[in-house]
Amino acid sequence: MTATDQKTKQNWLVEVFVSLKPAVNDPQGLAIKDGLHMLGYDEVDDVRAGKYMQLHLSGSDQSAVESRVADMCEKLLANTVIESYRFTVQPITDDSQ
Amino acid sequence: MTATDQKTKQNWLVEVFVSLKPAVNDPQGLAIKDGLHMLGYDEVDDVRAGKYMQLHLSGSDQSAVESRVADMCEKLLANTVIESYRFTVQPITDDSQ
Repeated sequence: MTATDQKTKQNWLVEVFVSLKPAVNDPQGLAIKDGLHMLGYDEVDDVRAGKYMQLHLSGSDQSAVESRVADMCEKLLANTVIESYRFTVQPITDDSQ
Repeated sequence: MTATDQKTKQNWLVEVFVSLKPAVNDPQGLAIKDGLHMLGYDEVDDVRAGKYMQLHLSGSDQSAVESRVADMCEKLLANTVIESYRFTVQPITDDSQ
């Protein structure tokens, strides 16, 4: 990495949350709910299961990263026919992370 | 539900995030990273895959709900040998949710 790269590129932590759309059946969520009921957690009314991904990536600024991540979600990370997604983007300031 | 219940119990939305501990191999995350690289997203350095769950439940107050959800995570929702978890708890004020 050159000195110029170090100035213009930064590391980012992206958290992506993918969940099934409300109209889609969620057998995994139902199984989790049944399991919780069997363990005595009767206060649980509903469970929806989804996916959670942490991405470490480099990018120049927040809006550019957000645009790229939205593309990744549309193309690979979520099946937008049945799933919805949201994500958060935060800069990693400490190199030790 | 009686009038007393309605006063003392409230609905809560709990979001649970389960991820593999750092030392644990994550073949699913590696496969996602490879897929992103094949699609041209070379800026992605690392991907960790995990689980995301939305729970709707009833409870009297936030600390009681947090205690119950921590129990659920320890007993069923996460395998604490290889996974870590965190969760957020928020009241649902609008009954339409």
